[in-house]
Amino acid sequence: MLTKKRISEISKLHLKKYREELHQSIVEGTKSVLDLLNSDFPVHEVFGTENWYNSHAIPHLDKKQFTVVTSKEMERISCLRSPQEVMAIVSFPIYTLTDIPDKLPLLVLDDIRDPGNLGTIIRTAEWFGFQYIVCSANCVELTNPKTLQATMGSFCRVKVIYTDLVEFFQNTQRPRRVIGTFLEGRAISEIAFQPDDILVIGNESMGISESISSFINLKVHIPAVSGSHAESLNASVATAILLYNFRDRVVK
Amino acid sequence: MLTKKRISEISKLHLKKYREELHQSIVEGTKSVLDLLNSDFPVHEVFGTENWYNSHAIPHLDKKQFTVVTSKEMERISCLRSPQEVMAIVSFPIYTLTDIPDKLPLLVLDDIRDPGNLGTIIRTAEWFGFQYIVCSANCVELTNPKTLQATMGSFCRVKVIYTDLVEFFQNTQRPRRVIGTFLEGRAISEIAFQPDDILVIGNESMGISESISSFINLKVHIPAVSGSHAESLNASVATAILLYNFRDRVVK
Repeated sequence: MLTKKRISEISKLHLKKYREELHQSIVEGTKSVLDLLNSDFPVHEVFGTENWYNSHAIPHLDKKQFTVVTSKEMERISCLRSPQEVMAIVSFPIYTLTDIPDKLPLLVLDDIRDPGNLGTIIRTAEWFGFQYIVCSANCVELTNPKTLQATMGSFCRVKVIYTDLVEFFQNTQRPRRVIGTFLEGRAISEIAFQPDDILVIGNESMGISESISSFINLKVHIPAVSGSHAESLNASVATAILLYNFRDRVVK
Repeated sequence: MLTKKRISEISKLHLKKYREELHQSIVEGTKSVLDLLNSDFPVHEVFGTENWYNSHAIPHLDKKQFTVVTSKEMERISCLRSPQEVMAIVSFPIYTLTDIPDKLPLLVLDDIRDPGNLGTIIRTAEWFGFQYIVCSANCVELTNPKTLQATMGSFCRVKVIYTDLVEFFQNTQRPRRVIGTFLEGRAISEIAFQPDDILVIGNESMGISESISSFINLKVHIPAVSGSHAESLNASVATAILLYNFRDRVVK
């Protein structure tokens, strides 16, 4: 049973302001919560139905950390229109650029605004072995519940670092290659990739911003079939095709 | 100025029941509405702000077809949380399997449930030159405003046909190849594609259904990097990588 006060405390995390202030967020759904409980993230509390608790025997999870709630209560604390049977409150570690080991391929996101796109990109990045993503400061927040949900648990394993991209590129050691997608550029299937390539994806409608363009030393594009009237690909789709090509042809 | 009655009539199209009954839907946003006005779709009425009308000189659009609304009115008739400056009411033509010319590559969707995924798949299909998509009857509806929005206008050009997939495959002439994505299967980069291949994508969580599996004669998969803990790719991402590979290596 949740008190009114507790419901209102939890619901604060529906707002970006409080998520940022507390470095906490809400993670919902069985897959994501189970991934979370298997991770090093500090989980403060798990809320779920009696039914969920009984059907998931989880060694690390004792009744102290778990609060049984009714479906009605779940509706009040969930961020989702169709709440799931379980959710958790978790603190997010803050990573910085110095946490990134050298010689790893990097994915850089310049102003991705849609939480579904960011989440899908994180999920795809994990699939193709990108352990770190560098985001411009104006990318949508990782801790947005919609972002977290779209990662399908990958947020527990892929490390996302928010930073000023101009500074990041100024401090990136040459001659590391920076590859960006542009409407002009070489067809992606022609490119041979290096293990420490940096791959840059731009904003959903504006592409890669001008201030970043000057750091790109290889422009690539994903060719449309001739005569197609589609103007562009979705940002998470373009990222997926780029990462697929990287993984398919990176020099080992 | 919209009357209460008119607002309530338009708002009926927020519900699937009325969209299906009337074969009509609401299309929102400048890009989609402009694509629509350039298409053969029967557009019944366009609603937009004065500002939008004045900044878009559209030859086919006279004031008779266009109703100026205030932002407040737009909020009441829009399906979006953040309404755009323009929306249109349109009838959807119904295509059938007999409309599909022979010898074209086909994309088949088995139970795609998320409107964002379906819309993104339609957008990607157009990019890679797939003019027809065959959907199982339980796929999310094309006329869902979220689907339409995610297509970014491609719904005007890609033809989507809903049908019983078992019947469809029973009636498909051999020896046409049917390729499906499975967790097991040959790595997609090894596959050479034929111009009339049929590519099948399954449901977001269940994959390709059992009743359809028996029609698949080539199973492929998109390899994850070894050691990745990601369990799967998003359905629209997997489709995009499949269509990219088709277009990259189809025999001409």
